[in-house]
Amino acid sequence: MGLDHTSVKPHERLAQVLSGEMEQVNTLIRDRMASEHAPRIPEVTAHLVEAGGKRLRPMLTLASAKMCGYDGPYHVHLAATVEFIHTATLLHDDVVDESAQRRGRPTANLLWDNKSSVLVGDYLFARSFQLMVETGSLRVLDILANASATIAEGEVLQLSAATDLRTDESVYLQIVRGKTAALFSAAMEVGGVIAGVDDALTQALFDYGDALGIAFQIVDDLLDYQGDTKATGKNVGDDFRERKLTLPVIKAIAKADDEERAFWKRTIEKGKQEDGDLEHALDLLNRHGALEATRDDALEWADKAKTALSAIPQSDLRDMLIDLADYVVARIN
Amino acid sequence: MGLDHTSVKPHERLAQVLSGEMEQVNTLIRDRMASEHAPRIPEVTAHLVEAGGKRLRPMLTLASAKMCGYDGPYHVHLAATVEFIHTATLLHDDVVDESAQRRGRPTANLLWDNKSSVLVGDYLFARSFQLMVETGSLRVLDILANASATIAEGEVLQLSAATDLRTDESVYLQIVRGKTAALFSAAMEVGGVIAGVDDALTQALFDYGDALGIAFQIVDDLLDYQGDTKATGKNVGDDFRERKLTLPVIKAIAKADDEERAFWKRTIEKGKQEDGDLEHALDLLNRHGALEATRDDALEWADKAKTALSAIPQSDLRDMLIDLADYVVARIN
Repeated sequence: MGLDHTSVKPHERLAQVLSGEMEQVNTLIRDRMASEHAPRIPEVTAHLVEAGGKRLRPMLTLASAKMCGYDGPYHVHLAATVEFIHTATLLHDDVVDESAQRRGRPTANLLWDNKSSVLVGDYLFARSFQLMVETGSLRVLDILANASATIAEGEVLQLSAATDLRTDESVYLQIVRGKTAALFSAAMEVGGVIAGVDDALTQALFDYGDALGIAFQIVDDLLDYQGDTKATGKNVGDDFRERKLTLPVIKAIAKADDEERAFWKRTIEKGKQEDGDLEHALDLLNRHGALEATRDDALEWADKAKTALSAIPQSDLRDMLIDLADYVVARIN
Repeated sequence: MGLDHTSVKPHERLAQVLSGEMEQVNTLIRDRMASEHAPRIPEVTAHLVEAGGKRLRPMLTLASAKMCGYDGPYHVHLAATVEFIHTATLLHDDVVDESAQRRGRPTANLLWDNKSSVLVGDYLFARSFQLMVETGSLRVLDILANASATIAEGEVLQLSAATDLRTDESVYLQIVRGKTAALFSAAMEVGGVIAGVDDALTQALFDYGDALGIAFQIVDDLLDYQGDTKATGKNVGDDFRERKLTLPVIKAIAKADDEERAFWKRTIEKGKQEDGDLEHALDLLNRHGALEATRDDALEWADKAKTALSAIPQSDLRDMLIDLADYVVARIN
């Protein structure tokens, strides 16, 4: 079965090239999500872990380590670590957002309860921590401890900033780094660190993950206003209805006149929404070019991701990661 | 002001002897609970941290390290780590238990919301992790990662086991190790590990913390059925009303006839409680000597704690820890 590189998506090519190691990662995840005493833990975890996510974050770690010439066993531990941290944050996010669906299935907080989601998330976070201790690298522990703090800080910041009209692009970026980019950049960075690359290369790996994560989240936020429901699995305007200030609206508010400001104040800050408000919001986004400006930002971050990787010696894996940056923004381009 | 050792409580004597270092711990806690971007984090944390808890766990770490001859700076980091982990679990526990009061004040989930409690707990857990990375000791990281996993596992186990009449004393012990003893034992153990003591001494420190924590929790569970509301700040029968199977009831169920089993099944497993049920439960506990047997268990664990410390060379700190074990069970003796 030959691979047609023009049609196979970059994350699928990564999955094929890394399939042997991803199998080890999956085995390790299944092994470590077990609990001798509390069967609820593997039940809840399996519901999420086996729901068919793309495993993008652990693949970044594996690709980063291999691309940097690592030939030890611990990139598998770190990839599982990163997936556990991701799964723990999803469990807690669904409690915080009171979500009912994730990856097309009912959320754990709905199938079991909020208690289970909170505590199983804590368990997975502790497990991720045990896995990274096994690598014996204090630098890796430092990176992932910092990423974990950035993630939680970004989520708390979002609680208060999401409905506050004073939230500007710099606050948005902090939130996005927390909810998405911090784990992407840490996933890339630890791959280089266990491979023992120098500081400049480590920085390049971090920068790629950071920019890729930001591009990824901006695309997500843009598609919320102009996506095709069938393709994205989300309804247009979910963020508007949930009163989440994202980049398109932040850009429109920056150009708003008094009447428009009053509209955003009523719908987002006070949450008093009426029929026709979403249509009016979309009209304002178009009027101020907010959707195109958001799209330009996403493309710029994808470019930054690719530029960062130009510091890494050429290899098939590097080229797949470069293609991945293009792919992340292809849905809006 | 001379110290009258016969009337000053052992944790107060520890607080006096360790006051200089506890001041450093408190400064470090205030410093690290700050967040540049999310002011909600220090608000929520301060509400809990400054509510006047006894700081028992960080004192155990300081006492353990000093008793073992440690003269470096990192016992302060580890004491703050232990307090952060404790605070994070309290925030999550109050969400899970839907509690309205803690330490005589409204809980954070009530004053802010569940979302803030979940995410600020995650932040403190990440912060605790950063603090321990700073000690540079992989062994310390391993111990605290394992303790964190045991804590979360015990809490999940309690979710399903607390209302299940099949829960026996061994399951109860697992839950108690998770919710209380794992952090006590880790707090003691890491003090010895950074002081560089040998394995036998490290084990003795662990055993003391483990037994002290178990005694502490058994006393708590016993006082729930026979306490003086004024002294404990809890109402008699709270655990019964909240359908929590604790040691006294487990012991009574082990001796129950069919009619009594039906009573426990209705009140605890099905949660159908009527007027007079608590009085009948107390009658059954007395009839089967369950309260005395529980008291005996607590005293036995306090003795185990003291015996463990006999392996440590005599010192004032050691003797205060021995007195602490007696003090923990003094309320029921």
